[in-house]
Formats: sequence, structure tokens, C-alpha cells
Amino acid sequence: MTYCVAMRLEAGLVFASDSRTSAGVDDVSVYSKMHRFDTAPDRFIVLLSAGNLATTQAVNAQIERDLHNPEITRNLNGLAHLDEVAAYVGEWSAKIQGTYADQSEQNGFGASFILGGQIGTQPAEIFLIYPEGNYIAASRDKPFIQIGETKYGKPILDRIIEPTISLERAARCALVSMDASIRSNLSVGPPIELLIHPVDGSSAFRYRRFDEDDAYLFELRRAWGEGLKQLFMQLPRFDWEQD
Amino acid sequence: MTYCVAMRLEAGLVFASDSRTSAGVDDVSVYSKMHRFDTAPDRFIVLLSAGNLATTQAVNAQIERDLHNPEITRNLNGLAHLDEVAAYVGEWSAKIQGTYADQSEQNGFGASFILGGQIGTQPAEIFLIYPEGNYIAASRDKPFIQIGETKYGKPILDRIIEPTISLERAARCALVSMDASIRSNLSVGPPIELLIHPVDGSSAFRYRRFDEDDAYLFELRRAWGEGLKQLFMQLPRFDWEQD
Repeated sequence: MTYCVAMRLEAGLVFASDSRTSAGVDDVSVYSKMHRFDTAPDRFIVLLSAGNLATTQAVNAQIERDLHNPEITRNLNGLAHLDEVAAYVGEWSAKIQGTYADQSEQNGFGASFILGGQIGTQPAEIFLIYPEGNYIAASRDKPFIQIGETKYGKPILDRIIEPTISLERAARCALVSMDASIRSNLSVGPPIELLIHPVDGSSAFRYRRFDEDDAYLFELRRAWGEGLKQLFMQLPRFDWEQD
Repeated sequence: MTYCVAMRLEAGLVFASDSRTSAGVDDVSVYSKMHRFDTAPDRFIVLLSAGNLATTQAVNAQIERDLHNPEITRNLNGLAHLDEVAAYVGEWSAKIQGTYADQSEQNGFGASFILGGQIGTQPAEIFLIYPEGNYIAASRDKPFIQIGETKYGKPILDRIIEPTISLERAARCALVSMDASIRSNLSVGPPIELLIHPVDGSSAFRYRRFDEDDAYLFELRRAWGEGLKQLFMQLPRFDWEQD
């Protein structure tokens, strides 16, 4: 399994992903699920992936080949809008899955992607690309998209993430959401990758990889866990309890 | 959908359940999913249910009929151990499902139950009864059992619930877990039912039903929600952030 989340905020984009893959409990490995493409300087494009690892690796490899093939213009540098990039990624994903299985059935080769980025002066956007290749954008009312093992980490996103939040706070919320998933599901695990893309042009993107023993991540988890326990102890008592 | 949780603690048992059923977004109703049986005074037996409403209603009704049928001894009053009660409930559940569908396939008639209770001076126990009729008990290492839409509400249980927690704190944690599920999933909704069974004999069981506008529930949700936001704002900053 996997857990990835992306956010589209007024200040920019935030991406986070875990790195655990498992083809059974005796075959657990570490693979990055975050892929930033080395595109032309007018654009910034990131792909997060969940699902069948053979499919997602093949999709990333194909996109890279197209990008560096001078005879192809329908690639990450040639496409003019991010939703066209979403369609392009979805086509390759569906095509690669179709190589191995009839897509009309639950086939085990399925993969989902979050595409995020910005082209030129267009707005930054994030898209959820379904296994069938179709896709949806985030909205202002729901400024985050999750793929993989999404439920454990959703409540804190529902409470905290709104379009006006700062990129750093949103990134912390992504890490807390990731921590909830890691604690409750063995198939989600570190290292955690974090990528922040500000839209004001104040700085380039910022990338961090948090290993299991990372000092900041440890401190964040400790502060959150202890704070939750303290908060819990302060909740109002039932009317039948003594003080 | 549904969300029910039960806990087996040193101090006793705690049960909580929501009351929303939906057979589609245009057919949403309120049904209790917590059933306490009026058994002999030497025992206390509760059943929480999730899944097909026709199945769970039929199971509860059959158990009630058996209980009040003087010619039947294999019923809630006649069985000597709680695990036998779990087997008995599981048999009826599988049998009723089998009336309508071949159980070997995903049939839509499935139901899961949490059985909890205490017989005489035996330890209080909780069991998860699967749609197939087999069942497992809670362990000391994992003292809670969930059914229905379980994932949203699991992280807070993982953090807070341990065997030595007081019944009231455990009950508050069940309400907070329920609140996370209600906030993140439209198919889980109030009223919330809460039942507490102390094992020290100090008092009888305690039952509360919290409607959507219940004052205590409102205050609990407010304190938790605002406390979470404050806690979140106090988390340690990244090294690149200004103070």
C-alpha cells in the first residue's frame, strides 16, 4: 500500500508521500512514490503514484523517455496546459495496464496518480488521475487530494487544510496525516518525502526526505502525540463523573 | 454505512454506535445499531451490528424469539459461556444471509457484529463476529474492536485506548473516534449511542443517547476541535522558517 497527499493552496503546492511497497508481508521494500521531472524552466511538474509498482514505474519511465526524445512534442515540455499533461499521463497509465490485463475487470495492475505543477504564469494545479486514465482537479472547497491508504490520515486534513493556510503549516499537516497512516497501517512507512512549491516566485521548490530516525520528524511526532494525550485528558467530563 | 466500536478494559466494557443507515443517498434513515437483550440477571449481553439492515434486524429478532421461547434452551439465557453466544449469533447470521444469497460470493446481504457482555463471574469479553459466522475475541494488546467504516476513527483509539484506562475516558475516546468518522464520512451520523458496563459491580450499566444537538456532545466536539487546532499551531517549525 501507499499513502500520498497533495494540496493546492493560495501560497502554492504541497506534496507528501511514503516509501513503503509490499507485494506480501515477506516482500516489503522502499521505493520513492514522488517523481519530479526535469522539465523546461517555465514549468514544474510532479507525479505521486499509488498502486501496482510495475505500472507506476513503467509510466514514469515512459514519460521520461518521451521528455528526452527530440522527435516527440507531445510530452511534458510540449504540452501547454497542466490538464493536457493529466490526460497524457492517464493515457499512458491505461495503455500500460492494458498491456497486461483486460481493464474492464479488477486486474491488480491498476495505478492512481496525483499530478501537480505549474506551467508558465498559469495557476498551479493538482489532479487525481484514476486507473482508467480519466482525471479530476482539486477545488477550492476541497483543496487536497489523497491516493492509496487515505482514510486514517483524512480527519486531520479535514480539520486543518484550507486554501489560505501557509505552505509550512500545510506541510506539517501533511506529515501529521502521514504519521496517522503509518501508526494505523503497517503497509505505509517511512522515509517520507515532502515537496513544497511556492507560487509567488519567492523561492524555488523545497524538497525534504525524512528517514525514520529524522530528528525533526521525531520531535514533530512527539509533540503531536503528547499534545493529543494532554488535550484528551482536558476534555469535558460526563455529568455523572466526580471532579 | 455504520460505525461501531467496543472496548474491553480492566474496568469493564464500553460500546458506542452511530445510527445512520443508507440504501443510497436518497434513502437515509435512523436505526439503532446497539441492541441490549433483556436476559437473566446473571448476565449482560449487547450486540452491535453493521452491514445489511434486513440481515441484522432478522438476527436480532430471531435471538429475541429464541430468548423468550420456553421450549428452547440454546439461547442467550441457556448458553453458559460468551464464546458460545458468539457461535450462536454467528450461526443465525450466516443462516439468514444464506436464505437470500449464495454466501460464497459477495452478496450484499453480509453483516458483521460485535458481541459484548459478561456471564456470571466470568470475565467480561467482546467478540467480532464475521459475516461467515466465525468470530474472534479482543486481546489485551488490542483491547478494542470496530465494525463498519472503521478507519477514520482508528488513529485516536490507537493512541489513547489501553487496558488500564478508566471507563469514562474510554467512553470519551469512543465519542471522539465517532466524531472523526462522522466528519469524514457522510454515511456515519448521529444519534450516537453509548453504553458502559463496569465489571466491579459498583453500579449497573449506564446508557446514553446523544442526539445531534446534545449539549455535552457539542461541548466535547468544540473542545476537541479547538484544542486540535491550537495544538497544531504549536508544533515545532521547520529549520528554514523564521520565528
